[in-house]
Amino acid sequence: MVLLNRRAYPFETEDIECRRMEEVAVAIEEMIVQGGPPLAYAAGLGLALAAQDSSNRTSELQRAALRAAGERLLATRPTADDLHHIIPNAIAAAEAALDEGAAAFDAVLEYVEGEIELGNRVSRACGEYAAELLEDGDRVLTHCIAGAALCWMLWVAKYQRKSIHLFPTETRPYFQGARLTAQSAKEMGIACTLVTDSMPAFLMSRNMLDKFICAADRVTLDGHITNKVGTYQLAIAARYHKLPFYVLGYDGPDANTESGAEIPIEERDPIEIFHARGVDPTTKATARIRTAVEAIGGYFPAFDITPPDLITAIVTDRGMFEPNEIRKYHNKINVSDV
Amino acid sequence: MVLLNRRAYPFETEDIECRRMEEVAVAIEEMIVQGGPPLAYAAGLGLALAAQDSSNRTSELQRAALRAAGERLLATRPTADDLHHIIPNAIAAAEAALDEGAAAFDAVLEYVEGEIELGNRVSRACGEYAAELLEDGDRVLTHCIAGAALCWMLWVAKYQRKSIHLFPTETRPYFQGARLTAQSAKEMGIACTLVTDSMPAFLMSRNMLDKFICAADRVTLDGHITNKVGTYQLAIAARYHKLPFYVLGYDGPDANTESGAEIPIEERDPIEIFHARGVDPTTKATARIRTAVEAIGGYFPAFDITPPDLITAIVTDRGMFEPNEIRKYHNKINVSDV
Repeated sequence: MVLLNRRAYPFETEDIECRRMEEVAVAIEEMIVQGGPPLAYAAGLGLALAAQDSSNRTSELQRAALRAAGERLLATRPTADDLHHIIPNAIAAAEAALDEGAAAFDAVLEYVEGEIELGNRVSRACGEYAAELLEDGDRVLTHCIAGAALCWMLWVAKYQRKSIHLFPTETRPYFQGARLTAQSAKEMGIACTLVTDSMPAFLMSRNMLDKFICAADRVTLDGHITNKVGTYQLAIAARYHKLPFYVLGYDGPDANTESGAEIPIEERDPIEIFHARGVDPTTKATARIRTAVEAIGGYFPAFDITPPDLITAIVTDRGMFEPNEIRKYHNKINVSDV
Repeated sequence: MVLLNRRAYPFETEDIECRRMEEVAVAIEEMIVQGGPPLAYAAGLGLALAAQDSSNRTSELQRAALRAAGERLLATRPTADDLHHIIPNAIAAAEAALDEGAAAFDAVLEYVEGEIELGNRVSRACGEYAAELLEDGDRVLTHCIAGAALCWMLWVAKYQRKSIHLFPTETRPYFQGARLTAQSAKEMGIACTLVTDSMPAFLMSRNMLDKFICAADRVTLDGHITNKVGTYQLAIAARYHKLPFYVLGYDGPDANTESGAEIPIEERDPIEIFHARGVDPTTKATARIRTAVEAIGGYFPAFDITPPDLITAIVTDRGMFEPNEIRKYHNKINVSDV
């Protein structure tokens, strides 16, 4: 399988080939593939590689190999829930296939491909509902990269002839906003003004923003969300300025997570906050520079948690929900069934 | 005169020599010298260079040259008030000298050197008062570089055997926190943990911070402060978490600025928020990389304004004031008179 290196994109379009499950796991850990759903799909395909690798063994050994691979893949990133759904479900599909004497690899691949297809429909439906929230002339703050639903939202709004101006935060330390979100806006012809992570509150105080919209790596049944660190700080600033904060909640709350305290927050190596990666203007090659002095401490929580009272609404593929009503998502009909 | 290049320090210790007033003005604009008081002193010395340059002319031409140089220097940075005090006062001192047939250069130099000496005493007194606020074990968030008063505060607290842990934000786009504040903490042997500008609210929510302390580029008579952009966002987060926010107000409010709306907020070239500067780990030379995609917009307000209701107290060389009482600073005895 081939992964686009999202660490370097769009400065470099580098394909990373993974032939073993372990290579996929490392690529996820190193953020070659990023974002809740994409990294979950990659992990699912990594599990398929593990199934392929053990396909000549006995059924028992194949099951053991799948479980070991699943544990390895689940350990890569703790916070987003998609990974933690896809791996157990893919293993269950593989075991069911083995029970019937069928190939585990085919079962995993079929399941993951179905999830990717479903994810595409979910993103589009979520983005279409979100587009309804936008008004002509809206100036929209966003943080990190909110994925396909944000692109669908902007695309549908454009089709509806609403003029939208996107303000992405650059999103240190990986600059997802400055690279990925800005690139998406550019490709779609959406006006885009980059700010640093420190600036949104000032822009709000000057009446330069209308809405704050971002995604969530996990939504809980009681309406907490976790997303890229910084979301919470912006949500507080938005509330202080009475700006609506909408969360693109894709396929809704994790049925296994009741509240925010249960979400494990990934803490990454602080080396990243001592450095910046970008492109050397002379050589045009991607480069990494040290932006902090040596021999100091650093702390890098990758996500934070925003409580329901700071959220105006959570938009999903089944429509909009007030955060404290998001539990009702699971009573609604799935977009894939319509 | 020689200026330390604060853009590159401490990665490079580069002295920039300025022989003409215009070189000083450009050095201030390009942030070779940074921070309200230091840049004001540099501008004052730049005015002395202009006085020296015109010292062979008639008194009238010298006055005209001083006024033109003053206008040029005042135009470099609009937000911090020190510059806007020092230049008119230095010109007044020069004109008084010319009235008496004395040298304008000597008068400017004497005045500016007096201001530098006074500034040192102000910083120390402000830092000593601020140290009283600290408790053993305090974990202190700070933003950008709060200058000599912060160093005095930490130094005095250390002398008082209070263990303080400093959490500087890196402070995009210039990384003053990651370079200058972190370096100061390191040199003083103060524990220092760097975070990105997005993380403080999350740390507050996890009870990892006790106080937020930063400086101000200008304090108004009604208790607004302006400081490096991001301060306001952190002040809102601090209030949301009931964390005290103390402002190192040095020599108190600007007697000419009644309220926050009167503070001009400098907007700088957004090119800086598209790039990061640091040190190349291989060559050890300072390097600049592009961190954002090309052909997008950017917005770079260099400062923001925090209203008095978000500030716990403003610490000055004349003691602590509640923000809405800061006007009384001007009734108190000056530290230079004691």
